Amino acid sequence: MRNFDQNSITQAVLERVAGASDPRVRQISEALVRHLHDFIREVRPTQAEWEKGIAFLTDTGHMCSDTRQEFILLSDTLGVSMLVDAINHDHQTAVTESTVLGPFYVEGPPEVACGTDISGDLAGEPMYVSGTVATADGTPLANAIVDVWHSDEDGYYDVQHTGEEAGLVARARLRSDDQGRFHFWSIRPAAYPIPHDGPVGKMLEAQGRHPWRPAHVHFMIAAPGHEKLVTHVFVAGDRYLDSDAVFGVKDSLIRDFTAHPAGTAPDGRAMDRPYCALTYDFRLNPVSEAASQAA
Amino acid sequence: MRNFDQNSITQAVLERVAGASDPRVRQISEALVRHLHDFIREVRPTQAEWEKGIAFLTDTGHMCSDTRQEFILLSDTLGVSMLVDAINHDHQTAVTESTVLGPFYVEGPPEVACGTDISGDLAGEPMYVSGTVATADGTPLANAIVDVWHSDEDGYYDVQHTGEEAGLVARARLRSDDQGRFHFWSIRPAAYPIPHDGPVGKMLEAQGRHPWRPAHVHFMIAAPGHEKLVTHVFVAGDRYLDSDAVFGVKDSLIRDFTAHPAGTAPDGRAMDRPYCALTYDFRLNPVSEAASQAA
Ligand SMILES: [Fe+2]
Ligand SMILES: [Fe+2]
Repeated sequence: MRNFDQNSITQAVLERVAGASDPRVRQISEALVRHLHDFIREVRPTQAEWEKGIAFLTDTGHMCSDTRQEFILLSDTLGVSMLVDAINHDHQTAVTESTVLGPFYVEGPPEVACGTDISGDLAGEPMYVSGTVATADGTPLANAIVDVWHSDEDGYYDVQHTGEEAGLVARARLRSDDQGRFHFWSIRPAAYPIPHDGPVGKMLEAQGRHPWRPAHVHFMIAAPGHEKLVTHVFVAGDRYLDSDAVFGVKDSLIRDFTAHPAGTAPDGRAMDRPYCALTYDFRLNPVSEAASQAA
Repeated sequence: MRNFDQNSITQAVLERVAGASDPRVRQISEALVRHLHDFIREVRPTQAEWEKGIAFLTDTGHMCSDTRQEFILLSDTLGVSMLVDAINHDHQTAVTESTVLGPFYVEGPPEVACGTDISGDLAGEPMYVSGTVATADGTPLANAIVDVWHSDEDGYYDVQHTGEEAGLVARARLRSDDQGRFHFWSIRPAAYPIPHDGPVGKMLEAQGRHPWRPAHVHFMIAAPGHEKLVTHVFVAGDRYLDSDAVFGVKDSLIRDFTAHPAGTAPDGRAMDRPYCALTYDFRLNPVSEAASQAA
């Protein structure tokens, strides 16, 4: 266990991590060491480049706070988040497709009744959102937890506003009714650049990439006996649908946000100005009782 | 640029980073994406495991401070630091071998004259260190910068002491004389566990590994026209020489820390108690003038 060269070092580290008592820890550790060392041997970093790498990871960690998750942004922009998502949702055809969680989900969002306007005092074009939650064969799922969150008309999430007591807005938890239906009001979200004033923004710039995501509404839907669905609904026609900075777009998740004139909305609300409407019927993947308990 | 599956996502990200204007950035980005995605496809992390990975990196970043570099510990314990070192010092036979920098180097250490006792008020067995600095063919290098740092008898570095104003100790910058010689006094260092109260310590524990490093004195030596040498001298006979937590031991870097009775030391100092003595003759790697300027 001495005098390692650039090839024997890998075997030495593999032998060292082979003592992991948990076989999964051992498997992940061994794969990490092999792939990480292969990467290093391929790019042959100078000592100065290694130091830059350490500094990049350190800066990324220091950027993380209660309201900013720079490592999720890194995972998203390197396609890792969508890769993990694809691995875990392979060959699921009868259910709604999933996409990245993103860094802006907040645990325990405000619980509201269907029909609530969750836009608070935000300016913007009114948006009526309705939909259903069902299992794979179309059977409605009652009392499903429907978490929603989206950007404002300037492309910012509530948690990105600091300084004043901004509070949570354009974010809520609803429940589907006995026919699996839900609806709420908010404002139309805008396309936005992912937060790019940190290390990940510098990386994107160095890679000649823009930080933009097409406009979307996030949904996280949970019902007993079903896999939790994490997805978005994207606005049809957005200019960034083919260059999403985090590779999250799927055709099945794009919908028209249809324009409606002032008048009586589908839920009976009297609208004195035009609004847009989005509807999506979600289907969740049933899981075995055992898998459901483990999740 | 939509609807990616677990294979097509990799090509999509590669195409995205291909726009990097700096060819080295492009090369490193492409290799990173390929190896990182291969790793993910091999281990197939669940969403919960991905979240654990994000949390591990975040915790590692938050552990980093002015006096703690958890990402260097991670690099060291995964063998990456020694691999980078091996890549950059391949086929160097006539010069002193290098090893990891470690997380405890401090920029701009206290400058002292040869002969100084740098142990401050630390308890421990006195240690007399002497050596020479020369180029590959043995020609002495005068006025070389010799940075040294080491642990105390309890295995701690000065920067690990907090609370009181501990200050820098067992750490100094010396200069070689016109015959390339230097010497100083300190106390004998002890083997120590790398800081293992953070995420890296948890990783080592999960991998069934101990965090110990064999006792050593760090040297960083710089002279014009030569590659900066980053190395240690290890104490012969240490129980951890064959299981160094960071894979840094090389036979050529091990020396006896010889025992001496009380009496007159080689530099004329009158010692009223026993001490140990370490000597090492360092040889630096000449570099071309161009490489020297770039470094
Ligand atoms: Fe979003
Ligand atoms: Fe050390």
